[in-house]
Amino acid sequence: MPLSSHRRSVVLKRRPSGSPQPSDFEIIEDAIPTPGPGEVVTRTVFLSIDPYQRGRVSGRASYAAPVQIGEVMTGESVGEVIASADPAFKPGDTVAGARGWQTHTLSKAANLVKVDGKAAPLSTYLGVLGMPGTTAYSGMKDLGQPKAGETVVISAASGAVGSVAGQLAKRAGARVVGIAGGPDKCFYVQDTLMFDACVDHRAMDLRAELQAVCPDGIDVYFENVGGAVQAAAFDLLNPFSRVVMCGMVSQYNEDEFPPGPNLGFVVGKRVRIQGLIVSDKPERFAEWRALAAPWVADGSLRYREDVIDGLENAPGALTGILGGQNFGKLLVRVGADPA
Amino acid sequence: MPLSSHRRSVVLKRRPSGSPQPSDFEIIEDAIPTPGPGEVVTRTVFLSIDPYQRGRVSGRASYAAPVQIGEVMTGESVGEVIASADPAFKPGDTVAGARGWQTHTLSKAANLVKVDGKAAPLSTYLGVLGMPGTTAYSGMKDLGQPKAGETVVISAASGAVGSVAGQLAKRAGARVVGIAGGPDKCFYVQDTLMFDACVDHRAMDLRAELQAVCPDGIDVYFENVGGAVQAAAFDLLNPFSRVVMCGMVSQYNEDEFPPGPNLGFVVGKRVRIQGLIVSDKPERFAEWRALAAPWVADGSLRYREDVIDGLENAPGALTGILGGQNFGKLLVRVGADPA
Repeated sequence: MPLSSHRRSVVLKRRPSGSPQPSDFEIIEDAIPTPGPGEVVTRTVFLSIDPYQRGRVSGRASYAAPVQIGEVMTGESVGEVIASADPAFKPGDTVAGARGWQTHTLSKAANLVKVDGKAAPLSTYLGVLGMPGTTAYSGMKDLGQPKAGETVVISAASGAVGSVAGQLAKRAGARVVGIAGGPDKCFYVQDTLMFDACVDHRAMDLRAELQAVCPDGIDVYFENVGGAVQAAAFDLLNPFSRVVMCGMVSQYNEDEFPPGPNLGFVVGKRVRIQGLIVSDKPERFAEWRALAAPWVADGSLRYREDVIDGLENAPGALTGILGGQNFGKLLVRVGADPA
Repeated sequence: MPLSSHRRSVVLKRRPSGSPQPSDFEIIEDAIPTPGPGEVVTRTVFLSIDPYQRGRVSGRASYAAPVQIGEVMTGESVGEVIASADPAFKPGDTVAGARGWQTHTLSKAANLVKVDGKAAPLSTYLGVLGMPGTTAYSGMKDLGQPKAGETVVISAASGAVGSVAGQLAKRAGARVVGIAGGPDKCFYVQDTLMFDACVDHRAMDLRAELQAVCPDGIDVYFENVGGAVQAAAFDLLNPFSRVVMCGMVSQYNEDEFPPGPNLGFVVGKRVRIQGLIVSDKPERFAEWRALAAPWVADGSLRYREDVIDGLENAPGALTGILGGQNFGKLLVRVGADPA
């Protein structure tokens, strides 16, 4: 066991080829840092594992800088302040905004936001109230814009983003159809998240099954997956439909990407296909926390968490989320809840 | 020769397979109609030949109803009123808005608009001041939104739409690169239309040539072509770029469409790809005529027309435009200019 005055960090050992493996990472130890002026040290309680993190360990150019070999792996966390050299934070505060797969994190105070672990479980600030929830919110508000009576299709519907995206579309009065992997997830999407239907993407004939539950076509498609799921959904897009391009997790482990859809239909159907990166509209984070916290508190916004114990299991968790093995928002518990 | 009291019309004889052939059409004769209340009969001076017309003779579902076998082929025309049962029009008026490959057309007065053949040549109301010009205008105003200093790429740059789209982007202060077929068109695009560069899509390595003239990537891509041209342009799209999906003429004669681009880049680059049909914003037509007529008059908005003589040559003109054989706005002269 490490001494409690030390911290452990997961660093990138080599760039994964295909599916990332735990052996692509290693754990290093060093002393818990001391904050300089304007800095804060937190003890990590939960780490967030998200599909976008695959892009950060790839050498490919992306919208964000990659993690370098030997650097601490990136990812959102929530935790408790243990030392602060900034007047805005004091030991015992619970905060979100720290980054890094580490037991203790040194952050600039400006990057942190206090969160109320009493109002909602601390973990929710990484999921339903955090980056994934905000992604769903911005995707629907800024791009998807579902209207009452429209049909909205959500891929990876049981996931951290999809589950919120679909519930928001329901609140807008749309008919909401999920696509998820396997009967358990589909049952959850229909029975707990209250989507109107859910199609298993492992179905023999995904296209036919999706068409059967979208008799009026698709007005908004919230894309998290790509590949065959995308092809099936695109075939059903209506005139003036909107595609929220949030992710294409099916190809994150690929070096070569398969061809995509012929885009001729975009012209005649006046489809709008647009990419979404949540950090482009940072104001959405606080907006969403304010909007959704009461819905989490009253139980009307449903979410599910899949918690794996131990920092050392973070690499395997990333492997799993890229294969769809998680069920709900995937978290790694790194430390005990604050007293 | 037909009697002058008769009219000739080109009707669809069978749905073309691949490239439409003159033998897919036939000419019928009937009496020049008499207008009923609210109707107007015009004598056609020019017909417009446009790539979208290929879609109208296909059986495939589209945003507009197809021409049925035995029906008069559709297409915009300009002409002279010869009989009117509507107070808004009188014989001798020159009008746009009539449709149909015919020497004489019976129209609802509400569909016609008077145009001033003295202010600008009558033919321009089918091209630079008509549907193609308005398409370019709406495409740039509503979707492309080029800004000063951005790089804008226009495919089919010497065509009726592309030539206007590029000149509008120049007026917005953008750097404008055309893609056109062959050295003559490329020379025209650079020398007359004053684009900053033009790449021949028949180049050995289109990708490399386009990259060489777009060192800062592409911020707006105005798509008229599809296929390999699209693939080359998409590779160079910048973060927050916009793709105006106006047409994909390279595949209009195909029954099976080739695969398209993998859309993974849309997410990380926050690209917006959106379809454009000019008739969705009918107000743009009058806006554009008012805006552009002075530019046509003072010569600052350049255009080129490719005029084929004789109604009977309209089917062959359609064949030609789909193969890129026209050079500038393609028109068929059906009758003499008004006195």
